[in-house]
Amino acid sequence: MRIAVLGTGMVGRAVAGRLAELGHDVFIGTRDPDATMARSEPDAMGNPPFADWHAEHPQISLSAYPDAAEGAGPVVNALSGAAALDVLSQIGADTLAGRVLLDIANPLDHSTTPPTLSVKDTDSLGEQIQRTYPRTRVVKALNTMNAYLMADPDQLADGDFSTFVSGNEDEAKSTVTELLEAMGHRDVIDLGDITTARGSEMLLPIWLRLWAALDTPMFNFKIVR
Amino acid sequence: MRIAVLGTGMVGRAVAGRLAELGHDVFIGTRDPDATMARSEPDAMGNPPFADWHAEHPQISLSAYPDAAEGAGPVVNALSGAAALDVLSQIGADTLAGRVLLDIANPLDHSTTPPTLSVKDTDSLGEQIQRTYPRTRVVKALNTMNAYLMADPDQLADGDFSTFVSGNEDEAKSTVTELLEAMGHRDVIDLGDITTARGSEMLLPIWLRLWAALDTPMFNFKIVR
Repeated sequence: MRIAVLGTGMVGRAVAGRLAELGHDVFIGTRDPDATMARSEPDAMGNPPFADWHAEHPQISLSAYPDAAEGAGPVVNALSGAAALDVLSQIGADTLAGRVLLDIANPLDHSTTPPTLSVKDTDSLGEQIQRTYPRTRVVKALNTMNAYLMADPDQLADGDFSTFVSGNEDEAKSTVTELLEAMGHRDVIDLGDITTARGSEMLLPIWLRLWAALDTPMFNFKIVR
Repeated sequence: MRIAVLGTGMVGRAVAGRLAELGHDVFIGTRDPDATMARSEPDAMGNPPFADWHAEHPQISLSAYPDAAEGAGPVVNALSGAAALDVLSQIGADTLAGRVLLDIANPLDHSTTPPTLSVKDTDSLGEQIQRTYPRTRVVKALNTMNAYLMADPDQLADGDFSTFVSGNEDEAKSTVTELLEAMGHRDVIDLGDITTARGSEMLLPIWLRLWAALDTPMFNFKIVR
């Protein structure tokens, strides 16, 4: 399956690498591919230059956002929450129409420490994207864990934790759930329609504090029942 | 140990009953003890009349809020989030000074379905209480699970889930952690100072949606690490 992954940061790389490993044709989208490949310094989050990562994943294509999304099946939003709506507008509603959009982004405002949520409780980034692109089939998922665990759940406790999906369309949630299960996610919980993304996005405040308290991002939420 | 439990609802009853079972002298506080005992109908949440419950727990005292708190060691806030600050003001800062206050309340606004949070992300009910009563040692805990699991964790998966504490004072958190462990909580995670109550209170939006999705409140969060 052809899959577009928007974003070249830690989340984009982890998910793209894993999907390619599973045999998918993965196209990573970025604003300016030449600029992305030319960077020789770590990015703002401390990730090594994209070109170094790409040298180890030559089968993955890098192109401008609209080119990556064109012709793709699912589109993965692995952007920062602050950038997501702007980048999607560069791709355009017509290209995004009918597509399953796996939305991993969290609407974090990094101007405070720890970050706060720029939208919450009565709205969510998942809903904002769904409202802006009503013909796109938005499914929120994977936003509640570290990038390494998104891509390869077996790295922690044999993947014995929970993964949430939120979306208005059962068929789109099934497509995403199949991808998640192929990646190794064992307990995928359907929270309901896209408004339930408020719940998973609002896990970020405790996630950030657990990261500090446990001194590692390698933890996850399991819903015991 | 003498312990005051503020609130006669499901949370107050469950926690008070369990603490009495563990051998503590428990004083439940209510606005008007005569009125509470006189009620013969289920309360707004569908709980049976308090008098019925009390008949099975005759060793637990019922008194007005200030009388219950007077002379107590720890005070447990098992009130609704909307009522908490008003009730604490009836008890007064001098009576609450120096006390460990175990704050279980969540600042839920029940005028919407599902409820939203009246304070969140940049503040929390735990912090509001701590700011209003600077001489009281506030510890947020137990607010992330169903009342039955608060009181008796073994009812689900042999208690194999996580319980969070937030507070400014290590000694107060130790007092609460000992109480929690005596009740059966096995994995108590210290999130940090009272501002981290923002994290545990913001679990409520996904808790409410999981309750709907799973069709039972008998689930809990385990932090896998």
